[in-house]
Amino acid sequence: MTASSVLISEVGPRDGLQNCDAVMATEDKKQWVTALAAAGVREIEVGSFVSPKLLPQMADTGEIVRHAVAIAGLDVAVLVPNLKGAERAIEAGAHKITLPLSVSETHSLRNIRRTHDQVIDEAKAIASLIASLPQNERPHFEGSLSTAFGCTLEGPIDEAVILRNAERLMGAGCDEVGLSDTTGYGDPGAMKHLIRAVRHVVGADNLTGVHLHNTRGLGLANVFAAFEEGITTFDSSLGGLGGCPTAPGASGNVVTEDLVFMFESMGVETGIDLEALMATREIVQNALPDEELYGFTPRAGLPLGYKGAPVPVVAE
Amino acid sequence: MTASSVLISEVGPRDGLQNCDAVMATEDKKQWVTALAAAGVREIEVGSFVSPKLLPQMADTGEIVRHAVAIAGLDVAVLVPNLKGAERAIEAGAHKITLPLSVSETHSLRNIRRTHDQVIDEAKAIASLIASLPQNERPHFEGSLSTAFGCTLEGPIDEAVILRNAERLMGAGCDEVGLSDTTGYGDPGAMKHLIRAVRHVVGADNLTGVHLHNTRGLGLANVFAAFEEGITTFDSSLGGLGGCPTAPGASGNVVTEDLVFMFESMGVETGIDLEALMATREIVQNALPDEELYGFTPRAGLPLGYKGAPVPVVAE
Repeated sequence: MTASSVLISEVGPRDGLQNCDAVMATEDKKQWVTALAAAGVREIEVGSFVSPKLLPQMADTGEIVRHAVAIAGLDVAVLVPNLKGAERAIEAGAHKITLPLSVSETHSLRNIRRTHDQVIDEAKAIASLIASLPQNERPHFEGSLSTAFGCTLEGPIDEAVILRNAERLMGAGCDEVGLSDTTGYGDPGAMKHLIRAVRHVVGADNLTGVHLHNTRGLGLANVFAAFEEGITTFDSSLGGLGGCPTAPGASGNVVTEDLVFMFESMGVETGIDLEALMATREIVQNALPDEELYGFTPRAGLPLGYKGAPVPVVAE
Repeated sequence: MTASSVLISEVGPRDGLQNCDAVMATEDKKQWVTALAAAGVREIEVGSFVSPKLLPQMADTGEIVRHAVAIAGLDVAVLVPNLKGAERAIEAGAHKITLPLSVSETHSLRNIRRTHDQVIDEAKAIASLIASLPQNERPHFEGSLSTAFGCTLEGPIDEAVILRNAERLMGAGCDEVGLSDTTGYGDPGAMKHLIRAVRHVVGADNLTGVHLHNTRGLGLANVFAAFEEGITTFDSSLGGLGGCPTAPGASGNVVTEDLVFMFESMGVETGIDLEALMATREIVQNALPDEELYGFTPRAGLPLGYKGAPVPVVAE
């Protein structure tokens, strides 16, 4: 029995833009976030609180968070690499904070210069900070297991390492863990296997979301496999934004438009108006004219007679 | 319990080339077919026996079939629109003959100018011809239900029409039926549903293959869904050849390279050497320099530590 609805978490403004050479202007970001929410997107990862020297594309994240939290019904997520980032996220009013822990320790050291032990210490400090807040001001805190399906530096990662870090993140005080196929190494079989294994350790309620890339074209197949395992939150990026510049045609994140098309075709409700979603491509294309936007559905158009999932009737 | 091996049927020389503006030279086709077989491809649809006025790309199909049947271990398939085509296929020595029946009668009339009744009559005539041959010379005869997941002219097709035509094709003497998502309208849920429904009518042994397009990016997700339902033969095209020229980026058939990567990553044996398969792209690109080849895996490269499915040990 699969779910009748899913949550699509748009990560284009964060994972997409941080992989673009050009920097999107703050006003364009605000317009894009507003348009995404108006199209029915219920969760957006709007940026990350990292050093603007490292990622100038993310320098205005605080301002974008403050803009986004004013939009009714929108859950505003951010990525943070450490306690300092979490403090800024909380100050700006983010609803959800994600701390990545790369299960490849080589990648973790290269990416955020921290060992697994050091990331767990950050998780503990962030959890303590959140616990010190009044209950209604506490953001949701996710520990994201990145490079979970393999690493470009280490290759496959020992499953025991993944499971241990999942347990440690929960032990440190995360509300849940997520699985990220950062490198696009995953396949539908590996997806099912690892979801089951991690849920066996942390409990099914504590793994509800995956963050998948489409590097080798398997993104939607992996999404479908994860959906069959009971995963209900899927990260994706409008136009697959953030495709690797050294591999033309290899999009980065799963393309939101194709993802929404797949679920709506299956009768699984996303709450997103696909035509309105596709119209937001123009905002991104105008703001970043040199960036190639991916996506099959926007190019092919919707099928004749396409209806999408039925909108549930809400009792008055 | 899913299968431990699958059959990838390469349809690039037929479905791919017939959708290209340029005509591939006969010698290039032969070189390509030879290289595909050398890479471990065990079945290739090498062409179709149609009027060379309608499809000049297919004018040399007889010569290609005669070339291909000389390759040891290769199953040589062709598409035929009618009895006359089947006669030519048998004369050339094809191992497998596929007759398409578009479940959208509007599309059938537009495409091959025949009603469903007329296609069934052709099927009966072809089956009689095959039955008149010595047993060891009889080609395998498949009736392919095209536009099964929807038609660009009619939209969704009534399931009763699909099931009735599946039954009638079997009744006419086909060895099996196949399901084709000609338009790329299918989704994983529809895939599972229709496979079950058709198998309920014709028996599981009489529906083992699907022909899926990637028009809206769902190709591999649909393949995975079909695989879970027990389908073991998958059509695909090298480089997604035959992408719609009016929709750049929208590839036609599922890309063979990505399909092989998916199954081999899952530990499902295809018998195909992925590096050797990808090397055959050069033959196609040199022969058709204006044609864009698709595929994520060829662009991104294989994952670090990638091994593919274990090759089964064959007892001496």
